[in-house]
Amino acid sequence: MTDRAALRRLSLNQRTTASWSLPEAIKGCVDAGLGAIGIWREQLAEVGLDEACRLVADSGLRVSSLCRGGFFTTADWAEADAAAASNRDAIDEAAALNAATLVLVPGGLPRGDRDLQAARDRAARAIEQLVPYAHDHGVNLGIEPMNPIYAADRGVISTLAQALDIAERFDASDVGVVVDTFHLWWEPGIAEQVQRAGERIVSYQICDWITPLPADTLLARGMMGDGHIDFPTFTRSVATAGYRGDIEVEIFNADLWAAPPVEVVETMAKRYLELVQPYLD
Amino acid sequence: MTDRAALRRLSLNQRTTASWSLPEAIKGCVDAGLGAIGIWREQLAEVGLDEACRLVADSGLRVSSLCRGGFFTTADWAEADAAAASNRDAIDEAAALNAATLVLVPGGLPRGDRDLQAARDRAARAIEQLVPYAHDHGVNLGIEPMNPIYAADRGVISTLAQALDIAERFDASDVGVVVDTFHLWWEPGIAEQVQRAGERIVSYQICDWITPLPADTLLARGMMGDGHIDFPTFTRSVATAGYRGDIEVEIFNADLWAAPPVEVVETMAKRYLELVQPYLD
Repeated sequence: MTDRAALRRLSLNQRTTASWSLPEAIKGCVDAGLGAIGIWREQLAEVGLDEACRLVADSGLRVSSLCRGGFFTTADWAEADAAAASNRDAIDEAAALNAATLVLVPGGLPRGDRDLQAARDRAARAIEQLVPYAHDHGVNLGIEPMNPIYAADRGVISTLAQALDIAERFDASDVGVVVDTFHLWWEPGIAEQVQRAGERIVSYQICDWITPLPADTLLARGMMGDGHIDFPTFTRSVATAGYRGDIEVEIFNADLWAAPPVEVVETMAKRYLELVQPYLD
Repeated sequence: MTDRAALRRLSLNQRTTASWSLPEAIKGCVDAGLGAIGIWREQLAEVGLDEACRLVADSGLRVSSLCRGGFFTTADWAEADAAAASNRDAIDEAAALNAATLVLVPGGLPRGDRDLQAARDRAARAIEQLVPYAHDHGVNLGIEPMNPIYAADRGVISTLAQALDIAERFDASDVGVVVDTFHLWWEPGIAEQVQRAGERIVSYQICDWITPLPADTLLARGMMGDGHIDFPTFTRSVATAGYRGDIEVEIFNADLWAAPPVEVVETMAKRYLELVQPYLD
């Protein structure tokens, strides 16, 4: 198998090369021989949906995910309505781009609010309220459980088990889960939960857990191989669960953002071929 | 109830006032009217076990915990033997001090090792091997599940459920669990796990989860009330589970370490009376 063929399931999440605009990222993926791209709404808005759809169609790339919907843990009705409207817009965009999933990041605790269970319940209800709209538009909602390091300020759904407890209330074609190594590598019984997830895995995102953690924990992610995660074992588990979609590299890291994006894509392709791709079949 | 009586179950973990020697910390606890102290082995070694036992006996304080044993995830036989010997020494000390428990911090992944499950299994086996010695010395081993933020480098046991899965293989009088709000506040189903723990709760440690996290994540803990944790709800849960022991304040935080220890103890007593003590009965 040539390297090009071996890269056909590799996807670049735009956050890995944050300095690239959407047109630049699409060109970067095509030049590197990747099969897909994970698009962020902020960069999408810069070029507009129609132009983005045209660029994606011309490129031949799949859209492995649209990032991101969610952030619907507010207890304020007006804010909740605004979040719902924003999520419907995101569903429209995901439909137009034919994205494999719209990634839902739940959001954290509202300011001054310490009732985590209530915030989790509101996130689940917000998902429930989005499902009919997503279903009508043929968009899969991907719930992203997030490392507990973000439970307070970014994502109140903390484990794959917890995400599945919510997702399983709906048809698998409507609500899936995002399996991200950074968020889930530590979860007790993760192999069993990945098997339980099965066809609900709508995105496999990869990056490493590095220590010491950088000062800004939002940027605490590392290139595969630089940290503590066992990618061969995790990847085999996801493959055995039946996942046949793209593998998206999403790395928030200030050092990578300062490096030339073409080099970052080269490194991620190299590490993918070494640590992930051989374990997909 | 006077404040003094209300403070009778409050314990100062020595790490909260890191600049104090053991004699200074004991005096600080007595002066503030606390009922107990959590002792660290490093400061214990500075004065010697006999002198420490005399100081503690004279003070009338209970020893709510000895910190810490554990760090037994190594895959190297010689290192494992050394860890076992150190843990037996810690058991001797805990017995002499009549500590409510010897806190076991499992340790992280060995350098370059990415097999988290194997490290967890080694931690469980190391506990199993310590139990007979601890039993003979009348010491309870308290397994401390740690926030997943530390899964790679400090504590591979990440949830109370996981700690209980290990602890329940043994008599409750031999092996218990340490319930620390910082480590466990985010755990899905934590209320049910605390009830499941019941009499196995041998230490209730408190401090807050603050955001943004400080640059050094080891020092990421905050004073109760400064962060996101719902102490009244958590405390009621622990009390309902039957816990009648001391409540130990353990805060690793550079700002607190820079403050006068007497003021830190005053603040922690104030916050305890406000956020914890009323919910203990």
